[in-house]
Order: sequence, then structure tokens, then C-alpha cells
Amino acid sequence: MKVSIIGVTGYSGLELLRYFRQHPFVEVVSIHSHSMNKKSFGDVNPHLQQLITLPLEEINPEKIMEESDLVLLATPSGISKELALPFIEADFPVIDLSGDFRLKKQGEYEKWYASTAAPNNLIQKFDYGLAEYRQYPQSKWIANPGCYATAAQLSLAPLLIEDKILLDSIVVDAKSGISGAGKGLSQSTHFSETHDNMTLYKMNTHQHIPEIIQQLQIWEPKIKAIQFSTTLIPVTRGIFLTTYAKLKQPISDEKLVQLYEEHFEKNPFIRIQKASHYPVLKQVIGSNYCDIGLAYNQETNMITIVTVIDNLGKGAAGQAIQNLNILAGFDEKCGLDNLPIYP
Amino acid sequence: MKVSIIGVTGYSGLELLRYFRQHPFVEVVSIHSHSMNKKSFGDVNPHLQQLITLPLEEINPEKIMEESDLVLLATPSGISKELALPFIEADFPVIDLSGDFRLKKQGEYEKWYASTAAPNNLIQKFDYGLAEYRQYPQSKWIANPGCYATAAQLSLAPLLIEDKILLDSIVVDAKSGISGAGKGLSQSTHFSETHDNMTLYKMNTHQHIPEIIQQLQIWEPKIKAIQFSTTLIPVTRGIFLTTYAKLKQPISDEKLVQLYEEHFEKNPFIRIQKASHYPVLKQVIGSNYCDIGLAYNQETNMITIVTVIDNLGKGAAGQAIQNLNILAGFDEKCGLDNLPIYP
Amino acid sequence: MKVSIIGVTGYSGLELLRYFRQHPFVEVVSIHSHSMNKKSFGDVNPHLQQLITLPLEEINPEKIMEESDLVLLATPSGISKELALPFIEADFPVIDLSGDFRLKKQGEYEKWYASTAAPNNLIQKFDYGLAEYRQYPQSKWIANPGCYATAAQLSLAPLLIEDKILLDSIVVDAKSGISGAGKGLSQSTHFSETHDNMTLYKMNTHQHIPEIIQQLQIWEPKIKAIQFSTTLIPVTRGIFLTTYAKLKQPISDEKLVQLYEEHFEKNPFIRIQKASHYPVLKQVIGSNYCDIGLAYNQETNMITIVTVIDNLGKGAAGQAIQNLNILAGFDEKCGLDNLPIYP
Amino acid sequence: MKVSIIGVTGYSGLELLRYFRQHPFVEVVSIHSHSMNKKSFGDVNPHLQQLITLPLEEINPEKIMEESDLVLLATPSGISKELALPFIEADFPVIDLSGDFRLKKQGEYEKWYASTAAPNNLIQKFDYGLAEYRQYPQSKWIANPGCYATAAQLSLAPLLIEDKILLDSIVVDAKSGISGAGKGLSQSTHFSETHDNMTLYKMNTHQHIPEIIQQLQIWEPKIKAIQFSTTLIPVTRGIFLTTYAKLKQPISDEKLVQLYEEHFEKNPFIRIQKASHYPVLKQVIGSNYCDIGLAYNQETNMITIVTVIDNLGKGAAGQAIQNLNILAGFDEKCGLDNLPIYP
Repeated sequence: MKVSIIGVTGYSGLELLRYFRQHPFVEVVSIHSHSMNKKSFGDVNPHLQQLITLPLEEINPEKIMEESDLVLLATPSGISKELALPFIEADFPVIDLSGDFRLKKQGEYEKWYASTAAPNNLIQKFDYGLAEYRQYPQSKWIANPGCYATAAQLSLAPLLIEDKILLDSIVVDAKSGISGAGKGLSQSTHFSETHDNMTLYKMNTHQHIPEIIQQLQIWEPKIKAIQFSTTLIPVTRGIFLTTYAKLKQPISDEKLVQLYEEHFEKNPFIRIQKASHYPVLKQVIGSNYCDIGLAYNQETNMITIVTVIDNLGKGAAGQAIQNLNILAGFDEKCGLDNLPIYP
Repeated sequence: MKVSIIGVTGYSGLELLRYFRQHPFVEVVSIHSHSMNKKSFGDVNPHLQQLITLPLEEINPEKIMEESDLVLLATPSGISKELALPFIEADFPVIDLSGDFRLKKQGEYEKWYASTAAPNNLIQKFDYGLAEYRQYPQSKWIANPGCYATAAQLSLAPLLIEDKILLDSIVVDAKSGISGAGKGLSQSTHFSETHDNMTLYKMNTHQHIPEIIQQLQIWEPKIKAIQFSTTLIPVTRGIFLTTYAKLKQPISDEKLVQLYEEHFEKNPFIRIQKASHYPVLKQVIGSNYCDIGLAYNQETNMITIVTVIDNLGKGAAGQAIQNLNILAGFDEKCGLDNLPIYP
Repeated sequence: MKVSIIGVTGYSGLELLRYFRQHPFVEVVSIHSHSMNKKSFGDVNPHLQQLITLPLEEINPEKIMEESDLVLLATPSGISKELALPFIEADFPVIDLSGDFRLKKQGEYEKWYASTAAPNNLIQKFDYGLAEYRQYPQSKWIANPGCYATAAQLSLAPLLIEDKILLDSIVVDAKSGISGAGKGLSQSTHFSETHDNMTLYKMNTHQHIPEIIQQLQIWEPKIKAIQFSTTLIPVTRGIFLTTYAKLKQPISDEKLVQLYEEHFEKNPFIRIQKASHYPVLKQVIGSNYCDIGLAYNQETNMITIVTVIDNLGKGAAGQAIQNLNILAGFDEKCGLDNLPIYP
Repeated sequence: MKVSIIGVTGYSGLELLRYFRQHPFVEVVSIHSHSMNKKSFGDVNPHLQQLITLPLEEINPEKIMEESDLVLLATPSGISKELALPFIEADFPVIDLSGDFRLKKQGEYEKWYASTAAPNNLIQKFDYGLAEYRQYPQSKWIANPGCYATAAQLSLAPLLIEDKILLDSIVVDAKSGISGAGKGLSQSTHFSETHDNMTLYKMNTHQHIPEIIQQLQIWEPKIKAIQFSTTLIPVTRGIFLTTYAKLKQPISDEKLVQLYEEHFEKNPFIRIQKASHYPVLKQVIGSNYCDIGLAYNQETNMITIVTVIDNLGKGAAGQAIQNLNILAGFDEKCGLDNLPIYP
């Protein structure tokens, strides 16, 4: 299988290259950038010198469709909605890592992204790519989920599907490494401002909120809202989610773990921790794993769910490749079978 | 006023020295360590060479009481309860930074610290030193609060005192820098294990939980329990608390801010952020400030309270000096009037 | 004494505010920014809210000279040379923290800063402010040294003045924290690019090279050049210098330490480490100290000099205040007597 | 090919597992620890849970030799010299990652490691494993080089072999991430002491000095000593070496780069940067690459060599596998062909 990557100079694009390097059935045949056509790719990315010898090409959809079998858009929200058009029109497979094709309900994109949405008929063609729960595994067009959204949805899935919690009690306290903000320069990516620091941002307005709700409502239509906040932590990679919810019935830690283990039994990238064990952020870095630990507190009747992913792995490039594997009929683990990098 | 510091080689002890350096009315006349009597103080603490010329002395209560007017115990929980005895028996003032004299209810210390408590009559002599709410400002014996407890109590005080929230809805998601774990060597203070990492520890069992509840019950006796978790973040100093609670009545952000501003009007170390502004961790480092930001979410009817302190400042040494100032009748700000260190 | 600060929103300007807060004889009466006149100072610098209530004013030299006794320019190189003019013309005291008035030899500024120099007669009016070696302590105009330059000059002074080393053997391997690059946004201050990273920059072209040589030639006119390189390390503050030179005669570590101790005997901010002890970066952070450790290697006949300063302390704001103290006839330590912040 | 790993719980051992995971021709058939036989491997290493299902076994040389074709000792210096004996006596292949079999000259190990050396006849059987310069590629016993030694030797090889530099002018200023100190607990691996810090340690006494000299003398017997110092930087992984030397003849940067390019033409893991380009630490993390940048300074007649490796990659596990590939006749790049992890 031959693929092209647009937006290869961003962090998700670079991570796609890293995973495809070890994929047995996929060859990256062309790489493209919407913003950086002139500089030599190796100069800008010295870690890739002598290893990636493909030139950085202009974006020519015709040429891409001639040479490749699928295109991945690792471009920011707002860019993808333009770039995707010619491919969709030509019935050519697209995996989009941006937020442009995720929100199905009209008006949501405008509200949360403060920008014009892609045409609605195109949005509806995309399958939301939470890999463990894809609705149309044969769909040619995949809207790869956001990093926070992936972690939040996987944290809550078993509880909602099994009807275990009070719906108005969910609190998701999310923390993210700085690479989630991409390569762009801003005060919130400035070393002296972020190192040794923590910053809560987009209070109650993060664009992943409607994305999370949309998926939770598939499992439990009665859910209306969740409390969700996002805080930057001084690490490059990783998302650490602490999720709280009140239970309808008390449960033991062992039963809770068992519930999750059984639910995710066939999902090799979801690793449920043993009772009284909680994942640390670093145990998934460089990988596509999503590790989940669970505890029930009988004093408060709440459960705490601790979930970690690599925002560039399961939160972006890793899951994109997992989705590609599903689409292409490969084993889900192809190209994703490496060990996390530790320490 | 002359003071002695026992446990001066720990991080809280060192921070006491740093604040006292700029205190106009207090002189540190002797420094002591329960564990490190032989090594030269300057060799172990090169940042203090030529600046602190006091020798590190053995702990001789008689001599300390002869030379000083007050003793600060910056020793770990479990040590203070032994060291404090001769001073209390001699009716000599003590500020204890450990957890040994904080929990008033019998059995609590044993349960949460898994160790024998100090004699109950001694515990009852101590005033819990949440400086803004001291019950017996003239008390000679002060149990300086824990770092998490300080931040959690200050976050919730106005809401409980003004009866604004549903008592069973409180979730406190607390993050702490590594210096909170002290100088001791363990896997959780090892650089390669903690750098670029986050770790949730003591799930539902942190010893500050009963300390928080004890104070909250003074404000609202009906409160039973809170959901409270503690996570290590890869910074040296600082506590970042995100607290969630459901409101009895909707409120605007402006009213919420006003409620807190009025409540803390006379407390110079509590700085309430303007509506839509949230404190970042670094803005209090090196200081005794506790900065609080607030937001109401009408979708979930929850408020989010973002609170930051320096765990060694308002969370330990700074508050100890604030308590000393109250006890001695000095202006609360004496020795604590410096600007935070930034960046 | 009353002072005004121009460029107060940069890191050196903020650090001036922090030190002046504890200065017994100096009051900051006005603060100014050349780039940020509109935003509220407290919004941009939340660590200062309620503490610094001065408004951010436009730069009006007339008004400044009316209200103040001295102005500090904490503005970048290239800006100071314009801003200083009206003050100098009016015979008003200026301490400039930029590089604009440091290089006395014509053509040097143009060569190393790639920009037009200030008028030569103005440059010559300035005294180079390496505080321990000021040539004209009564000068009204002080060119405060660069951070690297300060550390390099202090490292080598005793050896050159006492004629101990081979002049063509000097190698200075300098490392700096990211705050040295200021608040400006660039790839080299981007968290994801600098965290967990080290980058050598300005290979053989750093603008502090001629500044170092100029001072070394005062002590030893025969010196022509030094090998000097600068590397960014993932810390916010601090300069760590490792300097190597070949000795004319073998020496013991003890004699070497003694040479430095005697040389700097009257300089309270230079702390020479005992033989076999070397300073760590953190032991000077938040202070004006310059700590130096020394070792002789008889296998190579080289000495190694390990020198640490806080780039915003002795490398900028701290030394500026030390220079102000000298100029005003205050004790050198006024406002600079605090303990370093540790850990 | 089947291999066993002893010392798998240390950082180098874990990294061997990570690389072998992607090796097409090698299977890890057993893993062992000399210190941790009881705990479950997955509990201690949660990043490996469900991925490495091998049990942690006791060290039984007979059994290992029965099941495997080669054993890797990722054990600390002082341990390997005992563990290796039965394998060598049985003529069984060993790759040792410790310092126990590197120093060929009698008395050197005792002097620099302050411990009894392995028997001399065994030491002499080992081939020093600087992969690009192995003397006995068929040797069954390989002493894998130290991390600093690898970087220093590769930095200087072309200059010494081509006789370009003054032998008494070499200065190597080496910086290392904290994982180089292993998993052991000490003040120098304590987060609060090392974060935001830099520490020069083992001044003129690092045990890699004789190892470097030994190899340099193979290329240039007249070399006597080098100035070499080692400093800890606050990153987990990576070695950054800045090496200085005086040239016999001036040279242009381009010629210098060409010299290195030609010298390392056949070595896929040595990547020479273009003139005026210098490697950053992060560009080799997670890989076996050694990247080198070069500059000539005509003012000082010195060259500066900037060299970066991952201390756990080319500095340990990566090079061990490269050596295994050479020994087994595999392509040198087998199992090492992944892209570095960035950012």
C-alpha cells in the first residue's frame, strides 16, 4: 500500500513517518507541506537526515492520487477542510487528523472552532475514527479523533455502555504535554513560560468537548454535558486524564477492573491496570497504547479513572495508522508493535 | 525575637532560613538537625556558604529554650511528636510543620499515618495554623497545615461558609512538585523516573484528606467526605489544585469572583484573579501567595476553582512565618513581602 | 534614591523590580516599556498583581528626569542606543543592561552585532560595569556587562593578572538557560524544541566574544583570542561555564584555590569553593553570587575553572544594582543580600 | 539467533529489549536479573505489560547456554566480571556492556574503578567493541564501550588517524543525561537536586578517561593524556560532547567536513553535519546514530567538534546490537533502522 502525507513537517506528520518506517505493508511515497515548500526537509528536521530522502513536494492532488492509494492529512484544523476536497470528490481515501470532519451536528464546528465548517455532506461522509468503536470500518474517509477526546471517550466507554454512572456527575481533569500545541510559536509554547509551570487554558471552551459528548451520546443518548478542563504540563509528550464519576451502585476495585478488562478484551492497545495500580504518563510514550487504572472510593461513591496516552501516538499518528490498518484489512497492530520508550 | 530551627537541612527548614533572612524582627540564633550532626552545613548546602555561618548543633532543648523565644520544627511527621515534648512541657512556644499535631479526632492519626499518635492532651493544645482562619491566635503551639490541605481549604472556604455548594459533589484534583516529597531518596524522587512523567499516588489514602475534612467541618459540619487525589508533576516547587463542585444556585463568573474577593478582602496573601483569568503555577513560586481563579459552567452547573501555592511557601515555611507573625503581633507580611521569582 | 526602569516587561526588567523590592535606599518611581504601552502590567505579569501598582508609562525622558535620580535601561541591544541619548545629553545617570555601550573599539559593534553602533563619543563616556573591576566608579554612565562575559571575565581574572597561563590555550565552554534569549518567540525558545535538548549556537560568532577579550586585554594586553562557545541547556535560569587553560607552572589545587581566594578577598559576591569542590548551577539562582571551583590536572597541565551565575542576577539585574550601589556610595550588598532560592 | 539478557531491569537492559523487539533475526529467549528475582517483571516495568511475557529468571549459566546462542550482560561494572566467567570458560559468546573487560593495561582497572580487575587472560580475550573500529570482528567476546568513550573516540578518530592536531591540546567537555547514572538512588539522581541544575562530577577522575586514551593510542601512540570533564544535564537521555583541539595546519570548514565524511563514508550510524550545521541532542534520541558537527576557528586555530549520541543507544544497547550484528554476520543496521523519536 502506498500513502502520501500532507503536513509532514508538523509533529503529527513527523510521527506518522516514524511509525510507517516500521510498517510491513505501507510505503510512504510522497510527503508534502502546506506551508514549507522551499526549505530542504533534512535541514529543518536533522533527526531525519540520510533516513528520509523523499523531497518535500508541493501539494498536487492529481499527482498524489496517481502515485498513492491513500492520503493522510496531518494539517491543522481549518486547513484540512480545504485540502480534502479534491480527494473526496475523486472518491479517494483520506485519513484526516484535524478537527475539520469530526463534528456531525450542524453549527457545532462554527461554535467551538469559531470558523466556517466544511460542507455538511462531506462531513457526513467521514467515519469518526475512534478505532475501537468505528461505526463504518469500510469507510474511505476517516476523521481521526482528537487526543483529549480519545482518552476521555476510552475512559468512560465501559461505564456508559454498561449504565454504571450518574450522568451529571462526570468530571474530566485533563493534562497535556506541550507538543499538543504544535510547532507554532506563542507564549504558551515558550520554554521560559511553560517550564516549571502549569497552565489551565480554554476553561470550559475546549473544542474537544463537543467531540467527546458526540461519542458519549452514541453510547448513552441521555448524556448532556461533562465538566472537562485542560491543563498544560511541562513535558513534551503525553496526555494524563483523571476522570471522576458517581456510581449508581457501589462496586469493588476488582469488579471495576474486571468490567474494563472484559470490555476491552479484544482491543490490544487498551491495557487495563491491575486493581490498586495506576498508569504513569511515561509508560506509553512513543507507542499507541492507552493504559487505564481504576479505583472506587466508598466514602464518596465516586470512581477515579486514570488514563494515559501519547498525544502523538494513540492521540494522533498511532491511531491514524490503526485506522488505516482497519481500513486496509491489515492486522490492527501492524507498524504499531514497538515497545514504548522508557525511561 | 529569637528563634531556633530544628530540621533545618530539609527543604522546609532551608526555606525558613531564606524567609527569615529578610524578616525585620526575627533572628535565627541556632539551627539543628535530627539526622545530620556531623557534616558541615556549608558543605551540604553550598548555596548558603559564607551566608549562614551558624553551626549545625545537636538538639538540646534546655539550651534552645535558654537562647531562643520560639522553636520551629521542620522535621518529618513521626519525628516532631517526640521532639516537641520537652518544649511543650516547659510551656515554650512551638511551631510544628509536620502532621503530628494537626488531627484532633482520636484514631485519625493512627488510621492515616499508620503510626502511634502524640498524646491526645498535647495534640489538643495545638492551634491548627491555617493562618487566615486561626481559632486561637494567641496559642503558643501551632500545627502548621499541610501543603495540599492549605490549598484545598482556601479554595473551598467561601463556598462552604456561604453555603453555595452541594456537599457531596466536591472533587479536588491536586498536583504537586517533587520537592513535596522531601530530600529522601526513592523511586518517586528519581530524576529518570519523574522527569517527563506524571504519577498519581496514594489513591484515596493521602494523609491530608482527614486534615482537609476536619477544617471544612468547622465551616460546614454536615460535610462528610471529598474526592481528593494527588499527582506528582515534573517541577520542583508548587501545588496546582483544580477543584470542582456543584452549585445550589447558578451564578455568574463576576459574582463568583466578587464573593471570593469580599471573603478574602483582609487577607493580603490571597489574590483572587479577575473573571476569566486563572493563575499559573509559576506566579507564586518563592512567595507566600495563594492565587485563586474561578469559573462557573452553566452546562454542568459546576464551578471550577484553580488554586496555586508554593508548597514550600504558603504550603510550609511561608505560612509558618505568617503564623509566627500573628503569634508575635507583627504585621502578617513581615519577612514575606518579597516578589515571587519569575520566570 | 529614586529610579525609573525602561524595558520593565522583559526578564531583566522584571528581575530589577524583584531586587529593588528589598533595597533599603532605592525606590522605583516609574516603569516603562518601549513595546507594550497599552496592556495592563498586572495582566501580563500576574505574579506582580497587587504588589506592583505602578502604571506602565510611555517613555518621556523629560518626565523621567524630573521624577527620578537615575534610569535603568533593560532594553535589548539596538534599542538602548536610541533611548539613552536624551539622558546622556542632559547629563543624567544611566545604567544600560544592553550591549550598545560596551564595545570601545570602533568597528567592533558593527562586526559582532551586524548593526550601526551608537556614536563613538557616547560609547566612550560609559564605564564598563564589571562591578569588581570598574575603572571609573564615579562614572554616571554604566554599560552593564553581558551574562556570559561576566562569568568568563571573573573566571580568568586572577590567572591573567597574576600571569599564570599560556595565552593561546584558553577554552571557554559556556552553557546558558533559555531565559538568556529573552521573551521573544523563536524556535530556540519553543518548549518542544528546547526541553530535553541541548543546542550549540552562534559557533565562534557570539557577540560576547569581543566584550570578553576587551576586558581580558586590560589585564593582559598580549591576549589575542579565546575559544568560546555557547550552548543552550533546558533550564530557565543560570549560566554554567567550564573554562580550560594551560598553566605556565604546575600548581596544587590548594594553591590555586588560595590564589583565587586572595584575589577576590574583598568581593562579597565571588565565592571560591574549597579544593575538590565545584559549584552546581542551582546554588546561585535568584542571587547575585558568582561561585567558582578550581582543579589542576597534572596529566594535561591544564586547569579547569567551573563558574556559575544566575544570568538574570550577576549576569544582568543583580550586577546592575551592584553597580548602582557603587555609583551611589551604598554598601555593595544593599538589596542583594538575600539567600539563593533552593531547591 | 537466540539471546539471553542478564541485567534486563536496568536502563540498558530495557533498551536492549526495545531494540530486539524490532530485530528481524534475533529472538530474546530469556531475561535475568542479578538483583531482582522475586518481583514480577510487569509490575516493575508497567510500560512492558502484556508485551514482554517472558518471566524474570534466576541466572543459571548452564540453562542459558542450552537455550541461547549468546548472552548480553547489561550489568554494572563489578558484577559482570563475576557473571561472565562460566560463559567464557565454556567458550560461549558474551557481549558485556560494563567496564569490566575494556581496559587492557594491567593496573588501569584497579586505579580508575578502585576495585579488583577480572583475570588478565580473560580481559585479553575481549575485543573492544567500538563498532566502527573493531579489531577482531570475529571475536566471541565483546567489551561494549562506555557512552562517553564512544562519543569521544568517534569525535577524534579522523583527526588522529589523519594526523591533523596537536596532541596536547585536546579538551573534551562532555555532558550527560541522568539515565547515565542508572536506576540507583543517590543525591545526584534526585529530581529536586538535578532538575534545573548542572553538576560537574568526577573532575579528572572519570573511569572513561583511560578507556578513551587506550583507543586513541591505537590511532596515535604518541598521545599521552586528554583533558576530559563530565557534567550532568537535566535530561533523561543523551550525551552532548564539545571537543576542542588545535590544528597543525589551518583548514576550511568545508574541508573539515569533507575529511569526516570521507572517513566515515561506510559507517551508516555516523552522520556528519554540513558545514555551519551542528547537531542538537534530541536528533539522535531513541536511535543508534552518532551525529557530528565541525567548525574551524582561525582566530584560535582550534576546531570545535560537536557530537551527540543517545547514551542508551549508540552509548550502550544500540551499539551492543550493532556489535552483535557484526559478530553474527547480519547487516549492521538490523534492528537499528528506526527513526529517532522527535520531539
